Amino acid sequence: MEPVEDTPARATLRARAWVHLESPSGAQRGISRFNRVVIWMILASSVMVILETEKTLVASLPLVFLAGEIIFATMFTFEYLLRTWAAGEHPQGRWHYLTRPSSLFDLLALASFYAPFLPVSGALLRLIRLARILRLARLGQFSVALQNLTFALSARRFELMLSLVIAFTLMLFSSTLLYLVEGRAQPDAFGSIPRALWWSVATLTTVGYGDVIPGSGLGKMLAGLTALSGIGVIAMPAGIVASALTEVLRSRRLQSGEDTRD
Amino acid sequence: MEPVEDTPARATLRARAWVHLESPSGAQRGISRFNRVVIWMILASSVMVILETEKTLVASLPLVFLAGEIIFATMFTFEYLLRTWAAGEHPQGRWHYLTRPSSLFDLLALASFYAPFLPVSGALLRLIRLARILRLARLGQFSVALQNLTFALSARRFELMLSLVIAFTLMLFSSTLLYLVEGRAQPDAFGSIPRALWWSVATLTTVGYGDVIPGSGLGKMLAGLTALSGIGVIAMPAGIVASALTEVLRSRRLQSGEDTRD
Amino acid sequence: MEPVEDTPARATLRARAWVHLESPSGAQRGISRFNRVVIWMILASSVMVILETEKTLVASLPLVFLAGEIIFATMFTFEYLLRTWAAGEHPQGRWHYLTRPSSLFDLLALASFYAPFLPVSGALLRLIRLARILRLARLGQFSVALQNLTFALSARRFELMLSLVIAFTLMLFSSTLLYLVEGRAQPDAFGSIPRALWWSVATLTTVGYGDVIPGSGLGKMLAGLTALSGIGVIAMPAGIVASALTEVLRSRRLQSGEDTRD
Amino acid sequence: MEPVEDTPARATLRARAWVHLESPSGAQRGISRFNRVVIWMILASSVMVILETEKTLVASLPLVFLAGEIIFATMFTFEYLLRTWAAGEHPQGRWHYLTRPSSLFDLLALASFYAPFLPVSGALLRLIRLARILRLARLGQFSVALQNLTFALSARRFELMLSLVIAFTLMLFSSTLLYLVEGRAQPDAFGSIPRALWWSVATLTTVGYGDVIPGSGLGKMLAGLTALSGIGVIAMPAGIVASALTEVLRSRRLQSGEDTRD
Repeated sequence: MEPVEDTPARATLRARAWVHLESPSGAQRGISRFNRVVIWMILASSVMVILETEKTLVASLPLVFLAGEIIFATMFTFEYLLRTWAAGEHPQGRWHYLTRPSSLFDLLALASFYAPFLPVSGALLRLIRLARILRLARLGQFSVALQNLTFALSARRFELMLSLVIAFTLMLFSSTLLYLVEGRAQPDAFGSIPRALWWSVATLTTVGYGDVIPGSGLGKMLAGLTALSGIGVIAMPAGIVASALTEVLRSRRLQSGEDTRD
Repeated sequence: MEPVEDTPARATLRARAWVHLESPSGAQRGISRFNRVVIWMILASSVMVILETEKTLVASLPLVFLAGEIIFATMFTFEYLLRTWAAGEHPQGRWHYLTRPSSLFDLLALASFYAPFLPVSGALLRLIRLARILRLARLGQFSVALQNLTFALSARRFELMLSLVIAFTLMLFSSTLLYLVEGRAQPDAFGSIPRALWWSVATLTTVGYGDVIPGSGLGKMLAGLTALSGIGVIAMPAGIVASALTEVLRSRRLQSGEDTRD
Repeated sequence: MEPVEDTPARATLRARAWVHLESPSGAQRGISRFNRVVIWMILASSVMVILETEKTLVASLPLVFLAGEIIFATMFTFEYLLRTWAAGEHPQGRWHYLTRPSSLFDLLALASFYAPFLPVSGALLRLIRLARILRLARLGQFSVALQNLTFALSARRFELMLSLVIAFTLMLFSSTLLYLVEGRAQPDAFGSIPRALWWSVATLTTVGYGDVIPGSGLGKMLAGLTALSGIGVIAMPAGIVASALTEVLRSRRLQSGEDTRD
Repeated sequence: MEPVEDTPARATLRARAWVHLESPSGAQRGISRFNRVVIWMILASSVMVILETEKTLVASLPLVFLAGEIIFATMFTFEYLLRTWAAGEHPQGRWHYLTRPSSLFDLLALASFYAPFLPVSGALLRLIRLARILRLARLGQFSVALQNLTFALSARRFELMLSLVIAFTLMLFSSTLLYLVEGRAQPDAFGSIPRALWWSVATLTTVGYGDVIPGSGLGKMLAGLTALSGIGVIAMPAGIVASALTEVLRSRRLQSGEDTRD
């Protein structure tokens, strides 16, 4: 986990900092202790962004949030300056490092820490910093799992898209039928196809908010059939993901040759 | 994608139009650029049909919708006339082309574009035009996915029907029980088996609108058991689809011979 | 389908009736035309039982329902007498046929047709006649599907029971927690563990009626975690059924030897 | 099931009691008759703890509950004393037996039986006794199922955690969007990200309580997309569990060598 041992003893301080900051030797080295701390700090600052949107909380603990913002802004500014300083070790020079997309994204994320001191609110923008974790973590042990999942999902992307097309067709079909059947009785809920779609998506995904419900016998029968179709809408993607992952695990096993019989 | 190159340079204009309109050389050629435009136009006109049912939207933008209707009616009329003209290239003649089922369906779809100018509303009829996409698209890269899915679902059709029969039996059983237990206390909701079925289908599919709920302790216990059975009602088809697709992918792999060991 | 051809031409009328009524040569012969009619009649009479519980329907069409009851009672009485007469062909005699469990069940089902003429209501009892279909149908092409499903479910019955035990534990755990957190604020909904169980089962099965909802922040957090656990409660049985069916299909394929490579 | 036969006839009473109480020869011997009774008593006393939280029930049957508490406290005290006495047979002595963690847990569970006679309520603490079942049952025939499930789930733990991370990201994303879109119109429901999370978790898990619903068109569109994402949130873990169990069953089959071909 700690790549310090491999660093030659005579390495300069900056070179050793560079290793800790960017782990240039790749993912197999794991995440350095420094970057782990940064990841936890990003998570903590994101939780604070989330909680800060709750004004009653900010009103009761104003100093805690102010202190938090100042501390996080200071620490991430320090982290950015540290990386800028250590980037002198980058093979293609500091300027190249600072202008590559991921570093510019870091700068954007850093700017978001100064947002609370400006008259803007942009919670969405400030949560984008969570994406920094992706680069820092390099996902560690999750990388194989991510590979399996993305490979399985992309191998069966047409089946998954097809099941989405089927879901959309069912949604359009059932909302058109309920618009025709219930439109006159409940104009607010079923007075148009776009309005009926709200009911339709809630029913087909089995969410079932229950704010809008057909009133007539025919409408209820059609709604029951829609709810039953919803089982298929959930069962199909589940089945596709299952078979896709079974395939991926099987071909991984064959590649690794750990079992030559099968 | 573009079959123009293969057309002999000396081909007449009509012959070249025919190739673009009907791609007679088959699915492997893909969808011609002309038909792609037609597909997007069908989608756009369908979105307009959906939005037009929302009267507040039509009231605020009456000219946009009127213009849209006129433009779409004109364009699809032009498309139909173009196909009719180019159909002189059809091996069995223009009349044979125009009277085959899919062309008659095209005519019906075309007629639906003139519906807004008549005193009819038929949104359902007008959305049938979406089915034209099926013929034009020939589904392209989706055709393998569709084949996999339909093969898997049809190979396990009896298992799927059986799980539907089980779902219906559970539905009938639980609605009869709740009619007996809650019928007197809530005659509107559980006063008959057909009424109780509305609650039953919402619970077994885990939609759970919540408009109708048993009030007595016994009724709630039975409802809880029904909700738990709902897990099985969803798990069974999901499991059947998963195993069916696993089988299909396996036999495809064997047929293609890409891996002779397994 | 029709076993008439195999019947020797000199067979008595009773013997030929017997073949049609009981199809003694087994399931591979399929269901006789006579029994098909009986199955549809049972379904029709069951639909009538269901609709009859809706008193507004009976009030508006009293004669239809009365006629239906008389017709069904007559027809099923005739069917029973016919079977009794033909049972003279039974190898062990008519008395043995009439006293075997399935025939006694037929008699009970027949009695239920006379229930509407008595001052009893027992809809549940009258729907038991649906079970007669099982014997008459012998399930035909469904028998393989039923065998696959029951074999898969029974092979993994301990896994399925375990997932049910996990579901019950989660249910008990979350309802105890919400009883402790919300019990004082909402005594009607969370004032005791049995009361909180109603909320808990609706949440874990993702039914989510929404009649009972925690009000405090802590309660909502626990409810959110319960809802997330609900995903596992549904995913686990779905996964178990999927893997069990994959196994069953695989071993069926091996047994039939249709593909020796596998 | 009953290990009595194997006990030498000349064994002392204490040695024979020890065999019944602790079944030292392991899980393959199954659960002794004595421990079965204890398990049922634990279940019965837990049901009583659950029912006792319903004060209306206690008020109507005060003597039943009082008698139950006294009987259970007496019986479990007797059971504990019996185990203490028989523990003289333990190879490392009675003191070692009494101070091992599982015995201390037994003592804690025993103490909980005296809670109703003290002015404390702690239903959660008293239900901890259910955990005693785990040790007593040694899970019997469930142990293979439990092994299969835990092996499958732990082999795919990173995929499962990843699908949880995706679910959390979707939840955070959709609640931030709805906070921005609906926050001003419905400050109580969407006035902050933590508040919007309540709606978000109910929608993504397809629970759909329906107490909180976006009102604007844009909010409803985003909610519809969130509900559709919910399908993936359920389908992914279901698929992962299915493929993981398929793998486990396959490797079990290979290990047992019951089928050398595959």
